[in-house]
Amino acid sequence: MSILIKNVNVITMNKNKDIIEDGVVVVRENLIVDVGDKSLISNYSDCQIIDGEGGILIPGMVNAHTHASMVVFRSLGDDVPDRLQRYIFPLEKKMVDEQLVYIGAKYAIVEMLLGGVTTFADMYYFEDEVAKAVQEAGIRAVLGETVVNFSAPDCKESYGGLDYSKWFIEKWKDSQLITPAVAPHAPYTNSEESLKKIIQISEKYDVPIMMHAAEMKYEFEDCIEKYNMTPMAYLDSIGMLNERFVGAHLIHVTDEDLKLIKERKVGISHNVGANAKGGKGTAPAVKMYKSDMKIGLGTDGAMSGNTLDIITQMSLVGKVHKLINEDRTLFPASEIVEMATIGGARALNMDDEIGSIEVGKKADLVIMETKSINMQPIYDYYSALVYSANPSNVDTVMVNGKILVENKCLKSLNIGQIMYQIKSVREKIQKFGF
Amino acid sequence: MSILIKNVNVITMNKNKDIIEDGVVVVRENLIVDVGDKSLISNYSDCQIIDGEGGILIPGMVNAHTHASMVVFRSLGDDVPDRLQRYIFPLEKKMVDEQLVYIGAKYAIVEMLLGGVTTFADMYYFEDEVAKAVQEAGIRAVLGETVVNFSAPDCKESYGGLDYSKWFIEKWKDSQLITPAVAPHAPYTNSEESLKKIIQISEKYDVPIMMHAAEMKYEFEDCIEKYNMTPMAYLDSIGMLNERFVGAHLIHVTDEDLKLIKERKVGISHNVGANAKGGKGTAPAVKMYKSDMKIGLGTDGAMSGNTLDIITQMSLVGKVHKLINEDRTLFPASEIVEMATIGGARALNMDDEIGSIEVGKKADLVIMETKSINMQPIYDYYSALVYSANPSNVDTVMVNGKILVENKCLKSLNIGQIMYQIKSVREKIQKFGF
Repeated sequence: MSILIKNVNVITMNKNKDIIEDGVVVVRENLIVDVGDKSLISNYSDCQIIDGEGGILIPGMVNAHTHASMVVFRSLGDDVPDRLQRYIFPLEKKMVDEQLVYIGAKYAIVEMLLGGVTTFADMYYFEDEVAKAVQEAGIRAVLGETVVNFSAPDCKESYGGLDYSKWFIEKWKDSQLITPAVAPHAPYTNSEESLKKIIQISEKYDVPIMMHAAEMKYEFEDCIEKYNMTPMAYLDSIGMLNERFVGAHLIHVTDEDLKLIKERKVGISHNVGANAKGGKGTAPAVKMYKSDMKIGLGTDGAMSGNTLDIITQMSLVGKVHKLINEDRTLFPASEIVEMATIGGARALNMDDEIGSIEVGKKADLVIMETKSINMQPIYDYYSALVYSANPSNVDTVMVNGKILVENKCLKSLNIGQIMYQIKSVREKIQKFGF
Repeated sequence: MSILIKNVNVITMNKNKDIIEDGVVVVRENLIVDVGDKSLISNYSDCQIIDGEGGILIPGMVNAHTHASMVVFRSLGDDVPDRLQRYIFPLEKKMVDEQLVYIGAKYAIVEMLLGGVTTFADMYYFEDEVAKAVQEAGIRAVLGETVVNFSAPDCKESYGGLDYSKWFIEKWKDSQLITPAVAPHAPYTNSEESLKKIIQISEKYDVPIMMHAAEMKYEFEDCIEKYNMTPMAYLDSIGMLNERFVGAHLIHVTDEDLKLIKERKVGISHNVGANAKGGKGTAPAVKMYKSDMKIGLGTDGAMSGNTLDIITQMSLVGKVHKLINEDRTLFPASEIVEMATIGGARALNMDDEIGSIEVGKKADLVIMETKSINMQPIYDYYSALVYSANPSNVDTVMVNGKILVENKCLKSLNIGQIMYQIKSVREKIQKFGF
């Protein structure tokens, strides 16, 4: 049976950024089959009806970079210096196993769904566990096993992620919801040899490469010292930058790097909240957006960014760039909604399938309610979404034609069990005495 | 009957920043009469019990600068240049009347209460209407009529706010919940003569002066040109800076200005979200905080900052200053919660009465629930409040000993009526064709 969504103001995010007030969207199987004004209603009988009650219908949001399972460490060790080497790596080495990854991923996916995220890009260890959680929850995801030059939770040998990746890609390559990928941790935690193997895997299976790049000041400085090249130029020199490459952060980039990123059609996950909280600086997102690069928004892991929804990032991204550039007209709200939806889809090379509300696209849809006190009055839908909304305004979430959240409640998963499991994991971690 | 709050983790914000896990707070009439661990429970019988269900009990948050009624204009004219002169002033001149101010204030107060704000500082026109809304809602407020050098909604003559202020202060000076004040708009919209009259009013009645100051680049430049003094030095030269003065914004301040602000015990409302969105820059809040200045957080009006809760400001303030200073250790979460509560109370010279959970203080209290998915796991309460929470996590709000919000619902006011009224106002404004 088809599903007809009515009584919504449709933010299509098509090429013209059309808005249809009091619009209608019809979904059949997993696809959007009709989009228009309310006169469409009479063309359809025997549909399941969703009444949006005057809410705002947007394309499902894309979280273009996260480490979902790290939600188990949320609120641990914030505001301390040099966290990655001093805290995160040792903590992961001791604590992270399959079960933790599975429980964390499940929890994070629920948080993302309740916050209106319908696709997320994840790199961590034991991605097969993340994949299981994705399948159970019904969210869409790009998943890549991390490859690093040291003993990691998934393998005592360096670069154990390489073999895991091949196995993982083989296993999931025909999945409807999962796009398997390969995920070298960063330029400074992979040898050139490892990176070249990763390029081969990416080419052989035609899968994305997801990688932290140009994130750290020391990464930039060391790369210049070692290769006399910026991190982006170095990655390009070994043949890594192409349209399959999704770079997370891209903070420390020169104008030459930006040209490369544009020419090679590299995808960008701009993780403004986590980068700001980490005092790392921020990507030149204004230049990236204005030069039509493939830029979306990401949360990073919840140990860095603490929240996993993209609404929180929308509220931050404009403010940060307006402030830094001292220009209130930069990044108007419509551009921010674009980055949160079709922009993220572009970054992940999925914009043929998702990211906008157009006939033929996958039915990944979110209704933001406008009944809560923070959402009124509305003179501009984009402003309301970017400057007023918070994740609690997400009312209905559909992924691939299936309703996963309705009236702000999870439909299929047992949230009580998930909350219980996260508390058990928390107790184990607490005992570790971080 | 006394009220006993149990099963909460108490963030006291006393001098030692004590945290009492599984703590108890007892309220009698409008005062906190006991604070301790759960062994206290046996000392009290015949109390009304509030079970916090493992939530976090914090002092009510203080919104140290807003224009509550401007919520009627929320989402109107965002992202456009030179808004104040081109949009806001003309719009206000045409649209703002007593009824709009009353309806807007009522709406804004409800939003603030639902977001955990128990005290707000407001400057606008027809403050008597705001005062009525404050009385009906039961929130605490510092209210000052705006004084400007042009025809304003409350008076066709320039500086009409001066007489209004005297009348308003006389009327409300003995109120329990309302502290009347006087509110010159800004140094660049008041003559020296007007400002001197304001100083007299403030001295005569011993009331606060609330004022936008050092907010605009042009204000700073013009002041240097006209007086060869910074805005803060100019205000000091005419005798305006003292502990009764609450400066909003204070972005364009020199190190000499900071010394003045500290010496004169000036209160500061740091409005980071609105300032960032406006591309105005940001106050040197790190220096202000580290030098023990009286610094709190403010939202500004919802046409500038769009949201009226302080939780959203908490999530922003650390990130902005960590980013600008490239130092992730600046403004740890506990300092941010401090600014949101006792800091705001200090800025408004109310820290003897409110801002912390201590025996003898007014019972202005907020329970943040920790059952929602975004609030777990918790290893650090401050981190959870600052980096994870959003306004929808506010569960219970008490002002002056009265429970105003319970289970996330408003107890006393008719929210349906308030939502209906705001929509009517919206339609009128829409017709104005902004």
